[in-house]
Amino acid sequence: MNLQHVAEVLDQVRKANPLVHNITNVVVTNFTANGLLALGASPVMAYAKQEVADMARIAGALVLNIGTLNEQEIEAMLIAGKAANEQRVPVIFDPVGAGATPYRTETARKIVGELNIAVIRGNAAEIANVIGERWEIKGVDAAEGSGDVVALAKKAAQQLKMTVAITGKDDVVTDGATVYVVHNGHSLLTKVTGTGCLVTSVIGAFAAVEKDYAAAATAALVSYGVAAQLAADEAAEYGPGSFQIAFLNQLAKVGAEAISQYGSFTKVE
Amino acid sequence: MNLQHVAEVLDQVRKANPLVHNITNVVVTNFTANGLLALGASPVMAYAKQEVADMARIAGALVLNIGTLNEQEIEAMLIAGKAANEQRVPVIFDPVGAGATPYRTETARKIVGELNIAVIRGNAAEIANVIGERWEIKGVDAAEGSGDVVALAKKAAQQLKMTVAITGKDDVVTDGATVYVVHNGHSLLTKVTGTGCLVTSVIGAFAAVEKDYAAAATAALVSYGVAAQLAADEAAEYGPGSFQIAFLNQLAKVGAEAISQYGSFTKVE
Amino acid sequence: MNLQHVAEVLDQVRKANPLVHNITNVVVTNFTANGLLALGASPVMAYAKQEVADMARIAGALVLNIGTLNEQEIEAMLIAGKAANEQRVPVIFDPVGAGATPYRTETARKIVGELNIAVIRGNAAEIANVIGERWEIKGVDAAEGSGDVVALAKKAAQQLKMTVAITGKDDVVTDGATVYVVHNGHSLLTKVTGTGCLVTSVIGAFAAVEKDYAAAATAALVSYGVAAQLAADEAAEYGPGSFQIAFLNQLAKVGAEAISQYGSFTKVE
Repeated sequence: MNLQHVAEVLDQVRKANPLVHNITNVVVTNFTANGLLALGASPVMAYAKQEVADMARIAGALVLNIGTLNEQEIEAMLIAGKAANEQRVPVIFDPVGAGATPYRTETARKIVGELNIAVIRGNAAEIANVIGERWEIKGVDAAEGSGDVVALAKKAAQQLKMTVAITGKDDVVTDGATVYVVHNGHSLLTKVTGTGCLVTSVIGAFAAVEKDYAAAATAALVSYGVAAQLAADEAAEYGPGSFQIAFLNQLAKVGAEAISQYGSFTKVE
Repeated sequence: MNLQHVAEVLDQVRKANPLVHNITNVVVTNFTANGLLALGASPVMAYAKQEVADMARIAGALVLNIGTLNEQEIEAMLIAGKAANEQRVPVIFDPVGAGATPYRTETARKIVGELNIAVIRGNAAEIANVIGERWEIKGVDAAEGSGDVVALAKKAAQQLKMTVAITGKDDVVTDGATVYVVHNGHSLLTKVTGTGCLVTSVIGAFAAVEKDYAAAATAALVSYGVAAQLAADEAAEYGPGSFQIAFLNQLAKVGAEAISQYGSFTKVE
Repeated sequence: MNLQHVAEVLDQVRKANPLVHNITNVVVTNFTANGLLALGASPVMAYAKQEVADMARIAGALVLNIGTLNEQEIEAMLIAGKAANEQRVPVIFDPVGAGATPYRTETARKIVGELNIAVIRGNAAEIANVIGERWEIKGVDAAEGSGDVVALAKKAAQQLKMTVAITGKDDVVTDGATVYVVHNGHSLLTKVTGTGCLVTSVIGAFAAVEKDYAAAATAALVSYGVAAQLAADEAAEYGPGSFQIAFLNQLAKVGAEAISQYGSFTKVE
């Protein structure tokens, strides 16, 4: 795994244009779809229990996000997830706000318990809450906390038996054995809603073409982070509105050259 | 029907500021509302079965879109559609993803079967699936396919007894007799989610003021396509984020002069 | 209450970064979250009856918005509102489209009847309809009408026993005794969907840190209006798309200097 491989996986995403089936929250649907389109993937949102299995089966990846969960949506997620599992379509899970309310925590645990998840992506507090570790959280946008994120990620990966991606100032990705730390990204991402949800969907697009899911998630986070840095270079002085637009532009533009120049990750174990 | 008439209908939309009642998908609600506002129409979204009939009756047009359909929404669409039909409010229908799942195909057919639809707007695959023709589709963003789009549109219009607008590289509009082909638009529209859904709602705004629905749909597609071309002239080099914003700007600006200069459609039958 | 106090409250919002729990409509979720983030607050959207009480209890403010209401959402609003009331978390209410359909009017009245609301924010027609006064309305974007807005606001505040904020060309805020009229804002706000809904949520952020709710609402409206004016200075010539982005930028930038230079409100009673 090196920056050249990151760029190759990104290129494969653009060539394959994978269908990414999202069951996600109402706040981020538009931004998620636009981000995936900009990157070169093909987003679809479908929620009804009558069709989610059909859609998940033809998708390159299924992304489940509990940002504005409700009973019907959870039911649909489980139906879609089981269909995806049968068809070996990778399922990516974003446990938004796990720990903020018991309902979210329980739902997140139910999903990781009943489905075969390829990658779970959250901030440290969310991942900690999914596995029952203590971590501070306020609402759905958790602070970094002071814990050891690498240790948390490894523990979660081993306990849940799935690839774990914890995003924050640095991002940590591990399948329980190999650990990557990604140094890309920009603080302005925290001033635009849905940038965490979108990166989960982008991991879905990468997992559709790269079956080593730790490599897929790492490649996604590097590409995404470099796009954010390029966007911040252009737009940080104007503010979060301009950054959001510049970021969509850069998701369409980021490629091998920018990745080789700005991409930064280390294999720590 | 000529470019002067296109500009006149656009002008009438801005003067009448018609209320366009949308029952649409969660991905595009914001973009649809902003696009209609920019153009000069007055959007409203209302979904509850308790109020959709009341809202549809006072609207200039009712737009139904099954992009993220569910049982409650289908029920609401039928209630709203029947109220609109009684009041002779034109109903515009966007069969998003018909063919992608059986649930969407069946729902689309139910809606065209139970309601009196003024205009159905979709890509070739969606329209083909509504009338049971074979056409390729992946997710909700179908490729052009290789069929004869004019023949498909005419067949659909005659079979469904409604005006059909098939959008793609060129757009085809027909009431089953007269056929217009619109040459405006820009490929960047396919990189912004909801541009198909928005044009359906824009056709609604035009149908509120022009009762020849083939003329209304053609005028809407020309105006929309010219706005997209002007936006691409400004923003294509930056990317899809900037294009989206420039497009909203141009929906507010496009007028008689730009339409006479860039508008392009032909009456082929 | 003067411009210095406005700037101080804004500053307190940014320092406290209050969690604002929104149960709002599907059109504006993304824009509301981005607006609150830009301003310096911490948005969360949560709708499920299983979790809204938990979320409301830990919030700095709860914002209820009936823009795309349905039965489940109304139930959730009442549960969340009661939990907020018990915990003395201020509840801000936006009766979107009250008067447009009987369902909205009845729901708005149910909410103000069953909950202890800190601030209700609407246009004149919506507020009039909540208290059973006659006022013209079309869809959810009501015209100014010709009534005496100050008298209407005072009557509503006295009858409902809550702070009332009526927005329009000028904004009127009153707790039934003191009356403020805010002269800031810009007409382009009416060309971007959700700017009314967002200001309601911004009032929530201010009410989280300023317990004189008339002062909180006035400070919110002045700050918001000044941001809009600064955005219009930059972007009005381009159109509503650019204005929307410039406005998000300015929500992040607006501070004591701009408020002292452009802020404008009068205490009329």
